[in-house]
Amino acid sequence: MLPGVGVFGTGSTARVLVPLLKAEGFEVHALWGRSEEEACCLAKELGIPFHTSRSDDVLLHQDVDLVCIYIPPSMTRQIAVKALGIGKNVVCEKAATAVDSFKMVTAARYYPQLLSIMGNTLRFLPAFVAMRQLLVEGYVGEMQVCDVRVYGPSLLDQSYGWTCEELMGGGGLHTVGSAIIDLLSYLTGARAHRVHGLLRTFVQQNGLIRGIRRVTSDDFCFFQMLMGGTGSSSGGVCCTVTLNFNMPGSFVHEVMIVGSTGRLVARGTELYGQRNGSKGEELLLGDSGWVGPEVKEMPLPHLQGLSSMVKALRQSFQAHEERRSWARGPVAMAPTFEDGLYVQTVVEAVKRSSCSGEWECVEIMSQEPDPNHNLCEALQRNKN
Amino acid sequence: MLPGVGVFGTGSTARVLVPLLKAEGFEVHALWGRSEEEACCLAKELGIPFHTSRSDDVLLHQDVDLVCIYIPPSMTRQIAVKALGIGKNVVCEKAATAVDSFKMVTAARYYPQLLSIMGNTLRFLPAFVAMRQLLVEGYVGEMQVCDVRVYGPSLLDQSYGWTCEELMGGGGLHTVGSAIIDLLSYLTGARAHRVHGLLRTFVQQNGLIRGIRRVTSDDFCFFQMLMGGTGSSSGGVCCTVTLNFNMPGSFVHEVMIVGSTGRLVARGTELYGQRNGSKGEELLLGDSGWVGPEVKEMPLPHLQGLSSMVKALRQSFQAHEERRSWARGPVAMAPTFEDGLYVQTVVEAVKRSSCSGEWECVEIMSQEPDPNHNLCEALQRNKN
Repeated sequence: MLPGVGVFGTGSTARVLVPLLKAEGFEVHALWGRSEEEACCLAKELGIPFHTSRSDDVLLHQDVDLVCIYIPPSMTRQIAVKALGIGKNVVCEKAATAVDSFKMVTAARYYPQLLSIMGNTLRFLPAFVAMRQLLVEGYVGEMQVCDVRVYGPSLLDQSYGWTCEELMGGGGLHTVGSAIIDLLSYLTGARAHRVHGLLRTFVQQNGLIRGIRRVTSDDFCFFQMLMGGTGSSSGGVCCTVTLNFNMPGSFVHEVMIVGSTGRLVARGTELYGQRNGSKGEELLLGDSGWVGPEVKEMPLPHLQGLSSMVKALRQSFQAHEERRSWARGPVAMAPTFEDGLYVQTVVEAVKRSSCSGEWECVEIMSQEPDPNHNLCEALQRNKN
Repeated sequence: MLPGVGVFGTGSTARVLVPLLKAEGFEVHALWGRSEEEACCLAKELGIPFHTSRSDDVLLHQDVDLVCIYIPPSMTRQIAVKALGIGKNVVCEKAATAVDSFKMVTAARYYPQLLSIMGNTLRFLPAFVAMRQLLVEGYVGEMQVCDVRVYGPSLLDQSYGWTCEELMGGGGLHTVGSAIIDLLSYLTGARAHRVHGLLRTFVQQNGLIRGIRRVTSDDFCFFQMLMGGTGSSSGGVCCTVTLNFNMPGSFVHEVMIVGSTGRLVARGTELYGQRNGSKGEELLLGDSGWVGPEVKEMPLPHLQGLSSMVKALRQSFQAHEERRSWARGPVAMAPTFEDGLYVQTVVEAVKRSSCSGEWECVEIMSQEPDPNHNLCEALQRNKN
């Protein structure tokens, strides 16, 4: 039996998610927005019976068994941890910091019977599912290089907000890069141990953000990850990722993996491959012909990935009679909160590298840092 | 009147160059090869009246006024410097080291009346000539990012030789990267002041190179250049270059420049552009339909660039009656030996960065280093 759903957020993802949930048979009982107006407006538009701007009203709602959290990163941890504490299953977007991610991991470990997955949705895209399968089967031989590029228009909201602020989790690296970091660990089956990166904010002001306000989040980001292995100069896969959001009117989403005997390239939602010795590329998985809603702000790979994730959620829950119970199988490939912590750790290491100019190690937090130490760091940061 | 030409080299470039020279009306009088057999064989094939394996026989040949040097990098400096000393005009490929390049610069400065240009041929490709013109005219607004990738099959020769040896000037960075480094300084009108890079040799042995022999030259290289400006964190253009020569059966040669109001992309020999606000890319310069020889080892952009350079040489020389005199105009855009030194300095900085893991400054040599110091460095190098 499918669980009742409560949705946090009124942004473009929430707007797409609700129809996708309904299409799979989920009932969406409650919607939370930062303001009553936002919540009311979207609830009316999407036909959701209850809306609120108080998070407890959704978390404690008796018909809500699954909470989907698609809100600004800085608020995610609080809601996600509380939802688990109340005994709700959670699907959520990334948090703003590694400390927040660590707190979410702690909560998820504490309630292992509850579903807790990250809504980084590229893993579910059929092209990447097929890509991973082919990599496992040895299509490219030994993996050498992953080369990812995502180009598109500005990620900034119309008005000044968290998307403009690096410390609030805005920017290409945090927003799009984290989905890529997660995807690459899924595809290669390895994690980054060292990273190097360069972030830039080319557009610091525009027609809407001006005066004393300035964008601090990156619109260009470029990073390298050395995966697996521990040697500094040999072994392991080299990943290079280029994100450029100063390219209005274009959308490029390309993930290429080159190995010793061939290569695989996902362009948008399609998968191509070429084995060494063959004359040209073969189409391995065509565009399935997306029939869902089109969303300007949301690129097709993310949209289709989200749709596939919702399908997997349906399969996971409908396997059981009890509406809070779920089967691990269909969502086994979803990123866990531990994966979320890893991704956040890489994001922060790339940011550190962009400041230091050096390769930075990816060291996953194993215990919560002393809050006073944090305070000192924050003060330090503000000084610069 | 066109000068008589002497060609050094029997490789794929020399093989292409001779017909191109003849097509423009140059007479090729002499060919030098490392062995009598190689020289004899190619001279016969190309209809060159004189061949030799002694360099002086070409340099002192009375009908030779222009010397084209397309030989392994480690031998280039010696021939080029000697040719200038004897009073011949010189077109040549890159040298193996910055010290060699510096010696060539010194010679070129000493004989300013002689033509001395680098045979890095991408500058002459019509797509890049048009690209530069559009950049100057402000098509992309303020330049932000250059993104270059070159993918292709292995650069190694059939047999073990200099292409396998990093110290001999082999590898993707030295062979292809240097043409890109030169091109980007031509396009942006700026020079790299800091670079960061990563080199890899994924294929260290193959069917032909095995046993105790091992390839040391890179087959994957990835570097970033910060151009112009002097601040470490702001201003200037970011260039990212990805070279991958583990992709048999493919050839990708893409140079993209993104600016504040639009972008330009050269794919192969074609130029595309898109201004912010327009819906799609426009074709700015189509493929001209190459009618010259096809060469498997030589990608079309290099081949067409070489052809355009030869045309420019013809224009430069035919402006004058005297067969050693030339006009600066038609070859003004060609890279000088000073540009060659810059390129070599960047190449070495990228290699240093790949070892150190740090951003390295590009500092152009201004005086020849103490040879004893060099010796110490060479010994040091051998120890590692």
